[in-house]
Amino acid sequence: MSRLDSFIRRLEAQRACLDLAAHLVRELDGDVLELGLGNGRTYDHLRQLFPDRKIYVCERRLAPHPNCIPPAEFLLLGDMRDTLQVACELLGGRVALAHLDPATGEVAASRALAAELAPLILALLCPGGMLVSEPAIACDELSPVALPERVAPGRYNLYRYVNCRSSA
Amino acid sequence: MSRLDSFIRRLEAQRACLDLAAHLVRELDGDVLELGLGNGRTYDHLRQLFPDRKIYVCERRLAPHPNCIPPAEFLLLGDMRDTLQVACELLGGRVALAHLDPATGEVAASRALAAELAPLILALLCPGGMLVSEPAIACDELSPVALPERVAPGRYNLYRYVNCRSSA
Repeated sequence: MSRLDSFIRRLEAQRACLDLAAHLVRELDGDVLELGLGNGRTYDHLRQLFPDRKIYVCERRLAPHPNCIPPAEFLLLGDMRDTLQVACELLGGRVALAHLDPATGEVAASRALAAELAPLILALLCPGGMLVSEPAIACDELSPVALPERVAPGRYNLYRYVNCRSSA
Repeated sequence: MSRLDSFIRRLEAQRACLDLAAHLVRELDGDVLELGLGNGRTYDHLRQLFPDRKIYVCERRLAPHPNCIPPAEFLLLGDMRDTLQVACELLGGRVALAHLDPATGEVAASRALAAELAPLILALLCPGGMLVSEPAIACDELSPVALPERVAPGRYNLYRYVNCRSSA
């Protein structure tokens, strides 16, 4: 398998997971949160999946395709470890779907960042909200959801936020 | 169709065209030429398709994945308008398959560059050699080859070098 093969496979898995997550939150009120804009390809996909929802975007440094620049009022610029704390006031408990793709380019760095961000993301999700993520995140409040057909385990990850406190 | 959709479609078309071109040159002697290394994903794919051929690479500025750095003796660093002229002494008439993906990020700029590079590339191809390219190139010596199934016309391009002089 070449790097071209594995890149295509990852993008197909990413798209299939976003599509399924969008389906699973269709009856849930709430906003959408893109954690890492990059060139804006998945943001553009989210815009098409959610034409009627607010889509907030966290990004350290804007460098998207010119057609994929989020409106300023939905943009949280800066290190996510800082902006997600600020976002809590704005979005706490109101996000129906979040997508995390830190794209650090290094597996270990992405995992470490995801683990650090997880509690901040949880504070934003509404009960039953979905987190679509690569890398995987181990966390009691995130219940793994069966992946779409043709997506092998671990290639991308899909979680439902289970609010332990409210169900206790 | 989102930009994620169209990106996946382009990569799938690129891979299908490279695979088909590799099949079509299987009985042709000659080297392989990657015009534009980028992050090295298609270079890695070419390495797997052609484990026994020399793969030369033209690139202005090296920035590939660490596993995809070509050996120094196969690397032609600099502006392709210059390096392809130098390459003519080394490779003239000996390239069985060339892949052009200038990835300038702008359609018009890519087309203009491809048109400018076309005569330089032709000088390197052996008769019957294949050029896989995005963008399209209009040139009498390049005969369009039927695309793989599931690749729509124009999404990627496949040409066979027809040496008019030798067939005259």
